[in-house]
Amino acid sequence: MAGLLTVTENASAGEVKITGALVHHVFFWLKEPKNEAHKKQLVAALNKLIKVETIKMSHIGFPAGTESRDVVDHSYSVSYMVMFDNQADQDTYQVHPLHLKFVEENSHLWSKVVVYDSVD
Amino acid sequence: MAGLLTVTENASAGEVKITGALVHHVFFWLKEPKNEAHKKQLVAALNKLIKVETIKMSHIGFPAGTESRDVVDHSYSVSYMVMFDNQADQDTYQVHPLHLKFVEENSHLWSKVVVYDSVD
Repeated sequence: MAGLLTVTENASAGEVKITGALVHHVFFWLKEPKNEAHKKQLVAALNKLIKVETIKMSHIGFPAGTESRDVVDHSYSVSYMVMFDNQADQDTYQVHPLHLKFVEENSHLWSKVVVYDSVD
Repeated sequence: MAGLLTVTENASAGEVKITGALVHHVFFWLKEPKNEAHKKQLVAALNKLIKVETIKMSHIGFPAGTESRDVVDHSYSVSYMVMFDNQADQDTYQVHPLHLKFVEENSHLWSKVVVYDSVD
């Protein structure tokens, strides 16, 4: 496992508990959610964005076909979850040239973005 | 790394890209956000909940002190992010006795829950 994230193996389950991380989870709502070219462009751009050196772990995804429950939000287009070791690394990322370029070249694609930053 | 999640090491950065996963991210808004006993109870219960065998990776956190931007939601009390190998494992989790017990014993603590399920 790269980076300084501490991964705690839990002997009682096949489970890995991540500690010492800042989880930065971004949900994008595309202006044209059915436009596959727009979705493809955004995903390609996110795959470039995760090259920022302070990112330690990443996942790029789409709404799962899980059960429709009133608490589950399946309305977004793309999920982008990255982990940093700490807030300083997230702050570095925000002003990183790759991040600024990403926003400049792709922000016309989305109508709404929601970000959640969580630390343990 | 336990489980069937495929972790792709990216040689050009210190970064690990997770694929073949269902990311289940839950945000809890406590009825009494300043009640430390309630927050402590919820976190303790989540630490029991992550024993469900189909959970492959987990992170329990709180709003980070990142910059206040209009797209960043810092208003929740607790973040609970778990990863499964696939949707079937998430479905198993939903009806798992540990999950049902968690909801039964703790749902009085929160006023709102938002769930995002993402697959790659």
